[in-house]
Amino acid sequence: MPSVTVGRSLGALAVQFGCGLRGDPDIEVSSVAGLGGGDSSLGFVASPAYREQLRATKLAAVIVDGQLAADCPVAVLVHANPHATFARIAALLHPLPPAEPGIHPTAVVHPSAQVDASAEIAAFAVIGANAVIGPRCRIAAQCIVGADVTVGADTRLHERVTVCSAVRIGSRCILHPGAVIGSDGFGNAGDGGQWVKVPQLGSVRIGDDVEIGANTTIDRGALGDTIIEDGVRLDNQIQIAHNVVIGAHTAIAACTGIAGSTRIGRRCMIGGGTGIGGQLAIGDDIVIAGFGMVTRSLDKPGMYSSVMPVEEARLWRRLVGRFKRLDVLAGRVRKLEAVNAITATGQDDDN
Amino acid sequence: MPSVTVGRSLGALAVQFGCGLRGDPDIEVSSVAGLGGGDSSLGFVASPAYREQLRATKLAAVIVDGQLAADCPVAVLVHANPHATFARIAALLHPLPPAEPGIHPTAVVHPSAQVDASAEIAAFAVIGANAVIGPRCRIAAQCIVGADVTVGADTRLHERVTVCSAVRIGSRCILHPGAVIGSDGFGNAGDGGQWVKVPQLGSVRIGDDVEIGANTTIDRGALGDTIIEDGVRLDNQIQIAHNVVIGAHTAIAACTGIAGSTRIGRRCMIGGGTGIGGQLAIGDDIVIAGFGMVTRSLDKPGMYSSVMPVEEARLWRRLVGRFKRLDVLAGRVRKLEAVNAITATGQDDDN
Amino acid sequence: MPSVTVGRSLGALAVQFGCGLRGDPDIEVSSVAGLGGGDSSLGFVASPAYREQLRATKLAAVIVDGQLAADCPVAVLVHANPHATFARIAALLHPLPPAEPGIHPTAVVHPSAQVDASAEIAAFAVIGANAVIGPRCRIAAQCIVGADVTVGADTRLHERVTVCSAVRIGSRCILHPGAVIGSDGFGNAGDGGQWVKVPQLGSVRIGDDVEIGANTTIDRGALGDTIIEDGVRLDNQIQIAHNVVIGAHTAIAACTGIAGSTRIGRRCMIGGGTGIGGQLAIGDDIVIAGFGMVTRSLDKPGMYSSVMPVEEARLWRRLVGRFKRLDVLAGRVRKLEAVNAITATGQDDDN
Repeated sequence: MPSVTVGRSLGALAVQFGCGLRGDPDIEVSSVAGLGGGDSSLGFVASPAYREQLRATKLAAVIVDGQLAADCPVAVLVHANPHATFARIAALLHPLPPAEPGIHPTAVVHPSAQVDASAEIAAFAVIGANAVIGPRCRIAAQCIVGADVTVGADTRLHERVTVCSAVRIGSRCILHPGAVIGSDGFGNAGDGGQWVKVPQLGSVRIGDDVEIGANTTIDRGALGDTIIEDGVRLDNQIQIAHNVVIGAHTAIAACTGIAGSTRIGRRCMIGGGTGIGGQLAIGDDIVIAGFGMVTRSLDKPGMYSSVMPVEEARLWRRLVGRFKRLDVLAGRVRKLEAVNAITATGQDDDN
Repeated sequence: MPSVTVGRSLGALAVQFGCGLRGDPDIEVSSVAGLGGGDSSLGFVASPAYREQLRATKLAAVIVDGQLAADCPVAVLVHANPHATFARIAALLHPLPPAEPGIHPTAVVHPSAQVDASAEIAAFAVIGANAVIGPRCRIAAQCIVGADVTVGADTRLHERVTVCSAVRIGSRCILHPGAVIGSDGFGNAGDGGQWVKVPQLGSVRIGDDVEIGANTTIDRGALGDTIIEDGVRLDNQIQIAHNVVIGAHTAIAACTGIAGSTRIGRRCMIGGGTGIGGQLAIGDDIVIAGFGMVTRSLDKPGMYSSVMPVEEARLWRRLVGRFKRLDVLAGRVRKLEAVNAITATGQDDDN
Repeated sequence: MPSVTVGRSLGALAVQFGCGLRGDPDIEVSSVAGLGGGDSSLGFVASPAYREQLRATKLAAVIVDGQLAADCPVAVLVHANPHATFARIAALLHPLPPAEPGIHPTAVVHPSAQVDASAEIAAFAVIGANAVIGPRCRIAAQCIVGADVTVGADTRLHERVTVCSAVRIGSRCILHPGAVIGSDGFGNAGDGGQWVKVPQLGSVRIGDDVEIGANTTIDRGALGDTIIEDGVRLDNQIQIAHNVVIGAHTAIAACTGIAGSTRIGRRCMIGGGTGIGGQLAIGDDIVIAGFGMVTRSLDKPGMYSSVMPVEEARLWRRLVGRFKRLDVLAGRVRKLEAVNAITATGQDDDN
């Protein structure tokens, strides 16, 4: 969304980001781009798979690691982590517009709310009683910040974010449009074939440096709080149920749902479309491949999967038919074993 | 979200909620809490699995059934359904703030709309032509209530709910932020490799005591209406397509999608992440485990599942490989049967 | 949502839509309806499965193809594509209310925005700097149109649509409530166990005649743009990640997620709840059955599936157990082959 770009010399970038420099330090770059970009831009390559494209690039300069530097026909910034360095330089060259301090005349701010003088409250935003909005926050158009909410410094609520009462959000967070933080958890007690709503009396606590995607929902806790620790990254349309805990620096891709009271560890990576059942404990450094269905606790670090990739529909139907007759197939093998006087061990067969 | 609490004596609670009381009827409780909560709070235990924690509790009192009462070191409210009783007492002790009658000066209310004098219309709400808002309704900030919509008594639209034209909502419903009720169904007629939009001319009817989660969407019918019967509970990010009928007191967990014209029975429980195909009939009292894929009608009450739980990725890939060669394995078994002069019945083998 | 209907004679409709007419050309129809509708309505039948209902209809007239015309007891409009013809006549008889030109006094329109005089900007809409709103557009209540966005002629943004900066939307598009177009893609570079946000510097380009469902999210590109070509139909709660391309006239049902940089061809049909991995190429005319998991590129036209339909839970658990012991079953077959002196070919067995 940024539109203003600022030129920087390769020499200055190398110093600021701790890169080696191969080439003219006075070359200026004003934007980042892919390898096919133009001669005022800076790109990056993080994998030898792009070696050929690298050799043909017309960019001003490319960030690469030591192994690829020799293949670059233009200036090089050398760094062991080209992707992260690219991300940091891109943020420098394409800065987000800063908050424009002040409260838009159409915003409705409760008199008891404390809005830092350096914060921006945009059109039609609603700020509730006793809410606290920190320095340099940007609360974009049509956001709703409920009563007793606190928002830390430099946090950005993009357009149309809903933060329900008493939620606490840390510093430097980014919330994308349509996100709903602190809606009621799904608590229902059965009683004679009907449901009694269980009041959801906890709230949501979000750490620092958290990013939350568009239309993602995070429910408030039933009694205690739902907790999103520092540095967590949540993509779009994720559902986090009540009393879930997401450990620091875990990243979760879109369309994933996590059921109530489950604890996810730190530095996990969870692929898109994953479902995680309730009341589970997922340890640190667990990776779930996309479309995973997690129904038990996992503590051993590593990658887990349950994806069933598509096949041509005719073949697939046949395979599902085979699957649903696996009992029959096992019985036929048992019969063959009997005829051949082979004794299956108990572990081999569940009869 | 409630902030005011009101103390009640155990004696009064026992009378109001039909509980037996073991302990001092004059003990006052001012809040509900988990078993680890403090001595002015009331908790509950609904399962013997929590017996040890119950024995150690420092709560003022605990709601339990007759079997666990002897294990409780503090005062006891005895009820056959501790969870539902807890839910009811929690609602009493932590009441939602009542509607503040009146229309916020920033709201835009069509002159032909009928808003009950006891209803609250909050900031930036938009109420369309001929809409009817019932007694004690709370229409929160930035809600949109379309033309010809009716909303029954005591219904709460939390922030940022969109109700499209002609939708009818019953009494005592709760709609959470971001819900969209009455958007167009997905109707397209193919014509020469392109799509012609089929106008969606029905609407949505929602019964009494229905709860609808954050960012859930319910499409209007193509010709007739989409119907959500009394007492239904819908979690977050559920998608209900056009002309679906959800029977009374059915509960559906988050991220479930139901395709067009499917009828779901009464008192069903549908786990999160489930998909239900179109044009199906699901009977009463059906339970679908989470992540279920329902592609045919179901009428026999009971639990259904198709979940494939994750395994370590290396093992999983191997299993998928085996699955995709099931035809080959079956062929090998056939060959063995031939060698052993075993005749498979037609039912055993599809060759 | 339309409420005004306009009567038309069958004769006029036959001429306008290229239908054969069997019956009185002066019969007037004022609405469309299902086969059970009343005698001023027009219906359609597109399948012989409805022959019996057709024979009993009391509609004024029915659109059918030549084969079913003889079974219709009332007037007939004959067309080779009854469904598309019905859709077109329904749109004629039940027109959406036209845009009411002008800017609502509560809307906040940046002075540099160009809003066509025939366009409608409704209550609480926010139009950003340099945005361009085309002729006869309808920007409904609480929509946000970011800076530098362009919206083509006759496009409708229904209530509460968020369009982020620099997005381009074609003509005659329909966007449903809660849709978010142009939110940041999910770009994160790992660095020492933490994440560095990768700025998302591209945007979203949407062609003509595109429809986008409620609460659907389409992320802006990381460097280039995310692209939705002409005539695409997206249902509710779909997630389109950064740099995805959706080919013209492709239709995607609800709750589908498509990961980053994947290209979908033209005229594809993708069932609900499908997940498509990142960096893939899906060709033209590909059909994915609902709940599909696509993890590799597909180029051969046809239908693909990976749906695992539910079974009764007890049977299902047994089948999953069998599945997870497929290695053991294969080993038993190998042993039987050894005993029977059968040599499995390498292709038959992966040992």
